[in-house]
Amino acid sequence: MASRVRSAENSGSTANGSRRLRSASRAGYLAAKLGFRNYWYPAVFSRELAGGQAIGVRLLGENILLRKVGDRTLAVADRCLHRGVRFSRQPECYTDDTITCWYHGFTYRLSDGKLVEILTEPGSSLIGKLALKTYPVIDAKGIVFVYVGEGEPGDLAHDVPPNFLDSDLEIAGIRDEVKANWRMGAENGFDTTHIYIHRDSPLVPGNDIVLPLGMYPDDRHGISTFTDSEPKGVLDHAFEHYQPVFEAAIDGRMVARSKGADNHKIVAREVSIWMPGALKVDPWPDPALIQFEWYVPVDIDTHMYWRVLARRVADAAEAAGFRAEFLSRWEPLALHGFNDQDIRAREGMQEFYQDDAAWDHEHLFKADRCLVEWRKLASQHHRGLQPFT
Amino acid sequence: MASRVRSAENSGSTANGSRRLRSASRAGYLAAKLGFRNYWYPAVFSRELAGGQAIGVRLLGENILLRKVGDRTLAVADRCLHRGVRFSRQPECYTDDTITCWYHGFTYRLSDGKLVEILTEPGSSLIGKLALKTYPVIDAKGIVFVYVGEGEPGDLAHDVPPNFLDSDLEIAGIRDEVKANWRMGAENGFDTTHIYIHRDSPLVPGNDIVLPLGMYPDDRHGISTFTDSEPKGVLDHAFEHYQPVFEAAIDGRMVARSKGADNHKIVAREVSIWMPGALKVDPWPDPALIQFEWYVPVDIDTHMYWRVLARRVADAAEAAGFRAEFLSRWEPLALHGFNDQDIRAREGMQEFYQDDAAWDHEHLFKADRCLVEWRKLASQHHRGLQPFT
Amino acid sequence: MASRVRSAENSGSTANGSRRLRSASRAGYLAAKLGFRNYWYPAVFSRELAGGQAIGVRLLGENILLRKVGDRTLAVADRCLHRGVRFSRQPECYTDDTITCWYHGFTYRLSDGKLVEILTEPGSSLIGKLALKTYPVIDAKGIVFVYVGEGEPGDLAHDVPPNFLDSDLEIAGIRDEVKANWRMGAENGFDTTHIYIHRDSPLVPGNDIVLPLGMYPDDRHGISTFTDSEPKGVLDHAFEHYQPVFEAAIDGRMVARSKGADNHKIVAREVSIWMPGALKVDPWPDPALIQFEWYVPVDIDTHMYWRVLARRVADAAEAAGFRAEFLSRWEPLALHGFNDQDIRAREGMQEFYQDDAAWDHEHLFKADRCLVEWRKLASQHHRGLQPFT
Repeated sequence: MASRVRSAENSGSTANGSRRLRSASRAGYLAAKLGFRNYWYPAVFSRELAGGQAIGVRLLGENILLRKVGDRTLAVADRCLHRGVRFSRQPECYTDDTITCWYHGFTYRLSDGKLVEILTEPGSSLIGKLALKTYPVIDAKGIVFVYVGEGEPGDLAHDVPPNFLDSDLEIAGIRDEVKANWRMGAENGFDTTHIYIHRDSPLVPGNDIVLPLGMYPDDRHGISTFTDSEPKGVLDHAFEHYQPVFEAAIDGRMVARSKGADNHKIVAREVSIWMPGALKVDPWPDPALIQFEWYVPVDIDTHMYWRVLARRVADAAEAAGFRAEFLSRWEPLALHGFNDQDIRAREGMQEFYQDDAAWDHEHLFKADRCLVEWRKLASQHHRGLQPFT
Repeated sequence: MASRVRSAENSGSTANGSRRLRSASRAGYLAAKLGFRNYWYPAVFSRELAGGQAIGVRLLGENILLRKVGDRTLAVADRCLHRGVRFSRQPECYTDDTITCWYHGFTYRLSDGKLVEILTEPGSSLIGKLALKTYPVIDAKGIVFVYVGEGEPGDLAHDVPPNFLDSDLEIAGIRDEVKANWRMGAENGFDTTHIYIHRDSPLVPGNDIVLPLGMYPDDRHGISTFTDSEPKGVLDHAFEHYQPVFEAAIDGRMVARSKGADNHKIVAREVSIWMPGALKVDPWPDPALIQFEWYVPVDIDTHMYWRVLARRVADAAEAAGFRAEFLSRWEPLALHGFNDQDIRAREGMQEFYQDDAAWDHEHLFKADRCLVEWRKLASQHHRGLQPFT
Repeated sequence: MASRVRSAENSGSTANGSRRLRSASRAGYLAAKLGFRNYWYPAVFSRELAGGQAIGVRLLGENILLRKVGDRTLAVADRCLHRGVRFSRQPECYTDDTITCWYHGFTYRLSDGKLVEILTEPGSSLIGKLALKTYPVIDAKGIVFVYVGEGEPGDLAHDVPPNFLDSDLEIAGIRDEVKANWRMGAENGFDTTHIYIHRDSPLVPGNDIVLPLGMYPDDRHGISTFTDSEPKGVLDHAFEHYQPVFEAAIDGRMVARSKGADNHKIVAREVSIWMPGALKVDPWPDPALIQFEWYVPVDIDTHMYWRVLARRVADAAEAAGFRAEFLSRWEPLALHGFNDQDIRAREGMQEFYQDDAAWDHEHLFKADRCLVEWRKLASQHHRGLQPFT
């Protein structure tokens, strides 16, 4: 997937750098309160548009209207050019490929955004002269991706974690709004030692997985950073380079013991994060599965949390079997039983990090090197910052 | 009612003017977030004060206390001069013409605002030396009007729509707070083509009224602007100068048809708006009725929406008959069945127009000329701007 | 308690001074939106920590974690140094004298704040190098006091009203958050004439207490200000120097009569307020009781209202009797039946005084001299201002 791999331990350690160095290497990331422009982002699951209705979503602070038109999904700005109201407050779709504003009947073609009719003034001289901004859309793996940015979008494959688009992967998932900035989502997900919060998750006994209390990075802690190809990202070889911690002591007295110390299934061999903000945990939450996550900016204090599981399947029967298993087993046991704990952790971080000055007052430890690498990569290798007011 | 009428089509079209011209001609209106000073505004229905209790209202951001004293209604600032609390949190009226503060017993005469007693310190040296601001009040047509401004108020007749004070008009109505700036109310009400939102209103079949989907202004679209007399306002001869649209097509295919196309009652022959922000629709919602509306600023993002119906009556029996009909038929069928839809439309506009810069990004069409005239009139012929912080 | 007493009437009256003079003499108080630093404040009742759990409180805008460790109570900043989350969102106490962060297992010793272990990375080089801010704590009279400030704290006796620490005083009380700045609490409590709001309180007939409608200060109105010793405060000899007002007239007509005019128990002989913001009413609400109150800043618009009753007891049996009587009689009848009315009054003042400029527009009367003295004392004799943003 990447033509060249740069290893963190050879690149001038940032984790041990001065505060100034740290600040410089994360300036772009700090400014990315609303995320990065010129990327593909997941907007809705394809199934949400199946009924033919138009749906409004908010991505990176932009209101966008989505509608399935035949076998294409189209997206336009969710704001009438006449008086600024959002179509999605009461969407009206009289024909297959148009949206009509509920207020005065301004009607736009979804494919090019052009004003094609005004129901209250047929033949108006404005017709043909105004156009909504349109957004490129791709349907892939049951998810509608929207390109937020300028110019021609690149390959979707450049903006999603490796393997996500593999043809033999069947996916299933959910999305939920979380009251925390998107970076709290990304840093919670990619943070190897946050597993501490999951030590009582029902997933650990429920699926017999090995889950240490924490991880102890070795001296040659291997983090690979991919910047010469797309997607750009950071991969933590968690399994190979960390010492797991199964028992914890305070003042020499044992105080906690992992419930997963004697389990059998090895998961999370690799954890990686990819621009513009998507996670891959492989395998997870079972040796046969991969978990993908997105943390999509909605507003400065809100992100859409995507939890998606994937399984390699040989045929339609296996795919159907996975989808049934997702609903009965993985959604309650893993996505809720495990990842709902992450939501509370992000909300807990938001109070501190919403103040820009606070970022200078954190105290990272050795295991946070993965986050430092991610911040540096995001700062130096993004395609554009989404402005905020 | 007006000594001179200036017709919009002869006055240098603003609808086709440049953005700069448009901006200049609406600057005062844009600054009127809290409305215009030195006008009479409806505050409460007289019946709301009938029990003798004092009531607090908020007009143009000012807190005002109202009380009926004998056959007069009096108004003072709703804030004790001692420690700044609002009387209306717990109004105490020990005598006919005073208000006593619930906190320390400071007692003011409502007619002149003077501090006449302090119940907790009889004979205090402050007595007679402090006075609340008083507001001129007129009771008319069952509504209590308050003058918000400086100096001597003018005739009430100068600040209400023509005919409202006619002695043979019996009126009945309701008032409700709406979460949108008062200008959203005014522009929704005076906007001829907003009727599109009402196409499914139960009023249309329920009262057999003709209601097009939209209106198609002809080239000699007649709008009269009244600026040489009082009240100042803009009148749209809607019925004479518009082509009604009963069917709407997109790409040549019929998509919507007015349910009122075959009805018999002609309404809304004239629609007019008057400073400082009151509408008259004549006749409406029945050939025998007139609808008056006010959009009174409460705060920057809230207005009080007054819906008032009027009928000419010959005697007390006819007046009582109208009042009964109002309650059983017009309030549910017209004021709620039709105008509640307007409330949702205003809330839909508020999100866009609350940003001053957004006003430059609207795209008006021909039928909006009425709004452009209203904005120009309000900008150039107001008596004062209410300051806001 | 004080080595020298300065009497207000001899000190250049501020109540009659110019606005400029008034402003100068209350500047520090105006700036004390979050209260004064370098004082002891009540944080929680000792009983709240009895179960061994750690509890988070907010004092003067600072988040503080409290925990009982053996017979000591310890307090540290309620914010992990690693990623800034509050421990109290999910407190973890594995050993007697530590707090462990729920997120990554950073573990601090409560006595000195030092980072003593990281459960997810045993042996981390950060251990021993970071420390939480600690707060001095004293348990007294069943209340946990925390010192908010720099340097060595002084005697607790310097920061509480006189007699509060007397060994024969048994105390019982409640605390509640009120949505008003702490100064609204202090000024409501120390304001002699605010008794007007209590004229219908069930306490008056329920305990047969004398409660005038108001108080009429005599010319030699005696207010003592204590600034040469600790605690610093202002004492109003209410009973000796005021004329009670039992009947109130407007325009010569009797309008209100105190329900307590014919009662027998004399209470509130002295009312005093003490830095950093604590009240003493002696006796109250019964000749055998004293009421102490604190108005502790939480945030700019919120304070914690402490209502504490005290009785002198000779032995454990009397103490137990008082505690039982507190629950059955004084808490419902006095603390709620009387002081809940004060809460509503403070909320009523907050709207006005939250605007700094509004303080110049109040109009104080003679009886407010006690407040003027309090503002002046607080402005000139505080140990430090708590900064706010």
